[in-house]
Amino acid sequence: MEDTYKIILDEKDIPKRWYNIQADFPQELEPPVHPATLRPLEPSDMKAIFPDPIIEQEISRERWIDIPAEVLDILKIWRPTPLVRARRLEKFLDTPAKIYFKNESVSPPGSHKPNTAIAQAYYNKISGTGRLTTETGAGQWGSSLAFACGYFGIECVIYMVKVSYEQKPYRRGMMKTWGGTVYASPSERTQAGRKILAADPNSQGSLGIAISEAVEDAVTSTNTKYSLGSVANHVVLHQSIIGLEAKKQMAMAGDYPDVVIGCHGGGSNFAGISFPFLSDNITEGKTTRFVAAEPSACPTLTAGEFVYDFGDTVGMTPLYKMYSLGHSFMPSGIHAGGLRYHGASPLVSSALKHKQIEAMALQQMECFDAAVTFARTEGIIPAPETSHAIRAAIIEANKCRETGESKTILFNLSGHGHVDMFSYEKYFSGEMEDFQLPGEEIQKALAGLPLRA
Amino acid sequence: MEDTYKIILDEKDIPKRWYNIQADFPQELEPPVHPATLRPLEPSDMKAIFPDPIIEQEISRERWIDIPAEVLDILKIWRPTPLVRARRLEKFLDTPAKIYFKNESVSPPGSHKPNTAIAQAYYNKISGTGRLTTETGAGQWGSSLAFACGYFGIECVIYMVKVSYEQKPYRRGMMKTWGGTVYASPSERTQAGRKILAADPNSQGSLGIAISEAVEDAVTSTNTKYSLGSVANHVVLHQSIIGLEAKKQMAMAGDYPDVVIGCHGGGSNFAGISFPFLSDNITEGKTTRFVAAEPSACPTLTAGEFVYDFGDTVGMTPLYKMYSLGHSFMPSGIHAGGLRYHGASPLVSSALKHKQIEAMALQQMECFDAAVTFARTEGIIPAPETSHAIRAAIIEANKCRETGESKTILFNLSGHGHVDMFSYEKYFSGEMEDFQLPGEEIQKALAGLPLRA
Repeated sequence: MEDTYKIILDEKDIPKRWYNIQADFPQELEPPVHPATLRPLEPSDMKAIFPDPIIEQEISRERWIDIPAEVLDILKIWRPTPLVRARRLEKFLDTPAKIYFKNESVSPPGSHKPNTAIAQAYYNKISGTGRLTTETGAGQWGSSLAFACGYFGIECVIYMVKVSYEQKPYRRGMMKTWGGTVYASPSERTQAGRKILAADPNSQGSLGIAISEAVEDAVTSTNTKYSLGSVANHVVLHQSIIGLEAKKQMAMAGDYPDVVIGCHGGGSNFAGISFPFLSDNITEGKTTRFVAAEPSACPTLTAGEFVYDFGDTVGMTPLYKMYSLGHSFMPSGIHAGGLRYHGASPLVSSALKHKQIEAMALQQMECFDAAVTFARTEGIIPAPETSHAIRAAIIEANKCRETGESKTILFNLSGHGHVDMFSYEKYFSGEMEDFQLPGEEIQKALAGLPLRA
Repeated sequence: MEDTYKIILDEKDIPKRWYNIQADFPQELEPPVHPATLRPLEPSDMKAIFPDPIIEQEISRERWIDIPAEVLDILKIWRPTPLVRARRLEKFLDTPAKIYFKNESVSPPGSHKPNTAIAQAYYNKISGTGRLTTETGAGQWGSSLAFACGYFGIECVIYMVKVSYEQKPYRRGMMKTWGGTVYASPSERTQAGRKILAADPNSQGSLGIAISEAVEDAVTSTNTKYSLGSVANHVVLHQSIIGLEAKKQMAMAGDYPDVVIGCHGGGSNFAGISFPFLSDNITEGKTTRFVAAEPSACPTLTAGEFVYDFGDTVGMTPLYKMYSLGHSFMPSGIHAGGLRYHGASPLVSSALKHKQIEAMALQQMECFDAAVTFARTEGIIPAPETSHAIRAAIIEANKCRETGESKTILFNLSGHGHVDMFSYEKYFSGEMEDFQLPGEEIQKALAGLPLRA
């Protein structure tokens, strides 16, 4: 493959089944608990917000779950995505390491998010849902769900974190172009929003608050369900298509990763690229390392606790056993808006707790440095979120330069930064800064959780 | 191919030679003339702004010109680009027509422009150029040249039309990310800019003014050349890779176009998709139609005259025999900034004059309607410029619905609209309007041209 950069699968080789790591975990997952009773959640408790097929996937232990033909048909608009050998980055770093990236930025909304948005819109459609609500931070998820709902004739209502609503008008425009309706959160439309605004009329919002609003809207409106863009088991399942494709492509390249890297916000893109390879560690004794790269300003995996916590800020969702900074933790206004979440996927959390994966916290400035290096070598301008994965890959490649080892590094290029140029401008103008680990705030936010271990 | 949407070439099947339609034109091209002497331009007259290999390509009559390996190697970052069968758009239009589009939006800068930017940066590099100047309107070209110069260690200086500089900060950010330096034009850096500002301190600029500034900077600075993003013969040559790839892909699909469509600003993307097919009309007696889709507010091909005119506003460039609205014509502030140019490629102009191609003028609103239809069917949000090609394709497809003919329509998806969401917002907010044909202004601008036929 000496001359080749992109390793391209045929459309016919798109995986036809999702991979569910719950079938292979040697450990047991602790069940979510009901926010009112604090007893294990019954599947039927989720009916108010999710359609039955999604609930089935949320709790399934089946190893393989068929991807419906209707979903595959739409995924084909941009899938299979390229696997790219980053030869120019390798050369620039003067590393003996081989660096590959899976380019999920080629979807129309620009990230991995539509992999699950299409599936969720489909299952809602066949279950009779007419309207879907969701939250969005940086806007990647909201635009992906608007894009997906359009294909199934479902109305899409998006609560967008206010600071992003104001700073990212382009993402707002994308959601409208695909037919979505966008509200700045906190809004006056929900009790949760009004409560936050009463306490702080200038609230800039957070992902946790927007989730509270979207869930409340779903449970109080007719024919409406809620859709979640990360964290949940079914989202992790849908994102497995990334790693499944990457495995086929690595085999085409005659290679296999020593290290797999993804940026980490809620966990779905990291799990998407990692879990199909982690399966080989568990079932075949492979020894690949998996590195979740998160921001130092919101260090859920590296500084959070493994506790039961709510998924949202107000406390409407079930409690999940996960790494958390506390649901009232308010992360600094870093530019990787998609990584500003207090919790983490229960599946990723369990894998970290059982040392099947690692985590690494990175500062904002070193990530933008990495992003610019990547843009000037591999051409693509990455999303600020994605820059964390790139920075972690560069750290691993630099280690190889020191040791002389020719390791194979694979990272997920989860999204492009075309609508994040505002953040790049801040970086170039010298107005961007790093944040210190918010230790005390984390302890305050974790204190008093109902089921703290 | 029933199940397939994307028709993907292998990297090894990227064309290795560019196609030069000058070899096949039955008509003679009238030569450019010197702005001072009004005599035919000598190749040596171009040495102040172009390196020798570019001048050779500008005047070459060779049918095929080899693409250097160093250029191919960088084109592989995003090439070959997909050819897509737009089955969802066909279904939405309920047309018996088959619609294909060539997706040039997948390049890192988001358009077809880097096809020539990479080639021009390469030829300048091997000719010893250390610094390249250029102009940009919407920013697609400037970001492409910044992207290209980075790979060859050439300093890139971009004069960006002031109205776009202010309205499109994201494009500015992209140019910086790839290492370019951007100035709002008219600027105080050049005599041309100062002259315009003295007459109108609030001048919002135009492509013609920015060209004047970039050319002046090149001829008055050391080790500096100028680079042009459209219009010129060598640019049209480099863009032939679009049509050459599309021909291979149409053959893979077992199809051949009855109509080929591109939007038209300076002519390079239209020529890029069209000329390799037009070759078959000329040499093999095929009867494909070619439609250049331009904005009604800047109707160079449909309302301009075929005259000798300057390429820039101030009158520093040679005069070219081309369709022109007059070099002093100032187009309305339409949102397709890349189509606001008074002139047209001499090659495209000659083809139109000799009825080898057709042109069509379209209103802004109908093009945005088409863009939203396209985004909601095929997923991709197109650039406002590109929306003209989509609108023309829809017009052709609707004709097929009326006649029942199953024609094959191919258009060039020249760029995405990720950094044009400002314009989409205007469209959704109802603040956008159409413009009338600026007939009197055109007559005024054409009056008094030195060599008017």
